[in-house]
Amino acid sequence: MSIRVGIIGAGPSGMAQLRAFEAARKQGAAMPEITCFEKQSDWGGQWNYSWHTGIDGAGESAHSSMYRHLWSNGPKECLEFADYTFDEHFGRPISSFPPRAVLFDYISGRVEKSDVRKYVRFNTAVRWVNYDEATEVFTVESQNVKTGASETHVFDKLVVSTGHFSVPNIPEFEGINTFPGEIMHAHDFRGAERFAGKDLLMIGSSYSAEDIGMQAHKMGAASVTLSYRSSPMGYDWPSSTVERPLVTLFEGRTAQFSDGTSGEFDAVILCTGYLHKYPFLPSTMTISSSNVLYPGNLYKGVVWQQNTNLFYLGAQDQYYTFNMFDAQAWFARDVMVGKIEIPTAEDRSADISRWLERQNALKGHDEESDFQTDYVRELINATDYPEFDLDSVNALFKDWMRHKSEDILGYRDQTHRSAITGTMSEPHHTRWINAMDDSLERYLNGPSENVNTNAMATLDVEGRLAGHK
Amino acid sequence: MSIRVGIIGAGPSGMAQLRAFEAARKQGAAMPEITCFEKQSDWGGQWNYSWHTGIDGAGESAHSSMYRHLWSNGPKECLEFADYTFDEHFGRPISSFPPRAVLFDYISGRVEKSDVRKYVRFNTAVRWVNYDEATEVFTVESQNVKTGASETHVFDKLVVSTGHFSVPNIPEFEGINTFPGEIMHAHDFRGAERFAGKDLLMIGSSYSAEDIGMQAHKMGAASVTLSYRSSPMGYDWPSSTVERPLVTLFEGRTAQFSDGTSGEFDAVILCTGYLHKYPFLPSTMTISSSNVLYPGNLYKGVVWQQNTNLFYLGAQDQYYTFNMFDAQAWFARDVMVGKIEIPTAEDRSADISRWLERQNALKGHDEESDFQTDYVRELINATDYPEFDLDSVNALFKDWMRHKSEDILGYRDQTHRSAITGTMSEPHHTRWINAMDDSLERYLNGPSENVNTNAMATLDVEGRLAGHK
Repeated sequence: MSIRVGIIGAGPSGMAQLRAFEAARKQGAAMPEITCFEKQSDWGGQWNYSWHTGIDGAGESAHSSMYRHLWSNGPKECLEFADYTFDEHFGRPISSFPPRAVLFDYISGRVEKSDVRKYVRFNTAVRWVNYDEATEVFTVESQNVKTGASETHVFDKLVVSTGHFSVPNIPEFEGINTFPGEIMHAHDFRGAERFAGKDLLMIGSSYSAEDIGMQAHKMGAASVTLSYRSSPMGYDWPSSTVERPLVTLFEGRTAQFSDGTSGEFDAVILCTGYLHKYPFLPSTMTISSSNVLYPGNLYKGVVWQQNTNLFYLGAQDQYYTFNMFDAQAWFARDVMVGKIEIPTAEDRSADISRWLERQNALKGHDEESDFQTDYVRELINATDYPEFDLDSVNALFKDWMRHKSEDILGYRDQTHRSAITGTMSEPHHTRWINAMDDSLERYLNGPSENVNTNAMATLDVEGRLAGHK
Repeated sequence: MSIRVGIIGAGPSGMAQLRAFEAARKQGAAMPEITCFEKQSDWGGQWNYSWHTGIDGAGESAHSSMYRHLWSNGPKECLEFADYTFDEHFGRPISSFPPRAVLFDYISGRVEKSDVRKYVRFNTAVRWVNYDEATEVFTVESQNVKTGASETHVFDKLVVSTGHFSVPNIPEFEGINTFPGEIMHAHDFRGAERFAGKDLLMIGSSYSAEDIGMQAHKMGAASVTLSYRSSPMGYDWPSSTVERPLVTLFEGRTAQFSDGTSGEFDAVILCTGYLHKYPFLPSTMTISSSNVLYPGNLYKGVVWQQNTNLFYLGAQDQYYTFNMFDAQAWFARDVMVGKIEIPTAEDRSADISRWLERQNALKGHDEESDFQTDYVRELINATDYPEFDLDSVNALFKDWMRHKSEDILGYRDQTHRSAITGTMSEPHHTRWINAMDDSLERYLNGPSENVNTNAMATLDVEGRLAGHK
């Protein structure tokens, strides 16, 4: 009997798992019985943009934290699939920092060509999982989010690929309940158009704060204040952007900071990160971790230490993304089918400890990039996933971080070379600061005569460019 | 062995169930083994106000749809507990339409005095329920929302009291994804302060649209447009409020209506109702209903037809609230302990059909009030819940509806007589349109010298009063 594999989530990680099995099938391997559960009505996870916030149209928590005008904040050459290149998908060089719709097209293009959509039950949420130690079988309770119809499935192997940038982490701030303006977590941010002329407070000092803050600047915010807990990001911000330490108190519209300064704000965006949250799993199977490069308890960052029939994909903090999910999915596949032999619990534990020790010693972004590069390399070396020049990708991450520190509004205008095809990216037809249409059509077809439409009409593009140091 | 009772949710309905058992205990009855699961960190359900929207501080869907400056929109005399009067709680007459904090104080005061908090597991969500037909036992998988710790409980009887005004119903509208302003469901509305000077579009024609719209007016909105699907509410609105038929298209800030008119808006609030949603229940145990006075499949509106060990409280659309939940909880209790004998499935079905037929023939609000009055009466007559003059409460509902149609901004300034104590309510010290502090302290202690503070400072109270027809 073929093994029964359950996959929870059809975002980039779940799609990678489907692709991994399909790749083996093409080489003659037997296909397991696969059922992939996806709460949304389409695959793509975060990349499946929806205007919904909070609770979605089916009464479920909105999964995606995606927003309009999101352009990749890392070079696409760093996330390229080794088995499906940008050249193969688009047929010509494109720029290094494409917008959301372009990346969605790329990742969905690969799986559409893989004949795996049939394995996905869309609009279906997993509500609860049990594992029977005696029979070594998972029981999965699922529910159609639109009809309410519930089903029970059993699996020999279970893959958790629901991601960990979907459930917002929302700390308390004294007096925040007196703030009369809009308060949202970055998870619910969908676009900064309405913040033109407004004074914005972003709480947080990581990618969300940086990117949403700079989109707000691009869309004409009067000011952007970035509040950090431990240390400022320190980029060469435009003149209307400032960094302040942590908020100590809200009193109506006014926020007080720990350095004694204060400011009045129209809106607050909590860029305070996300939770590892798995409301469908008993605590015995659940990661409890902050957002780190190597959460404990996962052999090779993938196999649950207490139960080697349980797998997590993409549970790490991420420099690498799509191609790391591939490396993990190929590895998980080979463990499931017995091609990779799992060592003893003791040996697995020693391997995990080795990685955790190295993680604990990491200093700075360059070493973090080295760390994850070595991690991805180890996984790829263990499977038949196409090898590629990871050192060159690692070098690219470091170039990218340097470019950001040199020009936070201009780094997306850089071009980079693919480590897989050698193709040099094209400069985009419009500089990022000036690109107001993030559609696939506009991206591929060149600048329009009428870039500023609808909500964009009030934007003083030249004014913003003038403010761009 | 005493029966094991699980209660899901410690809002007004779950609190009523706890009180019902405690009332029997005080008269000498044996107390069952009770476990009540509450996702929030305190009881009170909707009445437990939180600034959180969408996803709360524990990564769970925010339960409460409560907002600042919510004053009861029906007379408190219609919801008064027959076994714990407003006089008993406050020690003196209060007004008929108190704000949220006052009602929260009232309902929590009753259970605080009942020694039942010990039965509630706070911060604990129910993830999944199974029922074993052979052993007639429910298995409930619960999880601490803060620690992730999961537990399995077994029960002989299960009460679902999670409410059905918590999961927003969010329809699609063409082009809504191009609207650049704030879009929220009424569930996520927390206060209209920030809509001063703004043009607001409310979609919906029930209590949420009416009450949030009039709060926005009170807080200085430039205009309030109410969009209805079937028929307008037709109140004598202030001059800045208009009713329009359904939105057919959004194009940027502009909404087009089915009558050919259009308008530009700063924000959209979807007052489009709520879903019966029970993500922790298999479909065999789940209500599938719109918001009606008598959902099918529930004997006496309480007992699940296919499994008489399963109970729903408050699953109805509601004229009556707190005291109806009491009537249901007392009834459910007596069924659980065998004091009320459950008739055959056939007889139950006939009883349900009789109510459904009457429901189908209802015409207008007065008949609906009659219907629910008779329903509550039937439940109360079956138990030892203190009887009270339901005809007088029914008459009060009709007076209230007349007052609303006469003066939508002034009906809350009316006074009413308690059907239980005969006490006449006091006029509130400040007219509703002018009452800008909704705290318990201000409510009980009289008008302040400085009513307008913080966010209210910009409000032209006289101006709003002048606009009050």
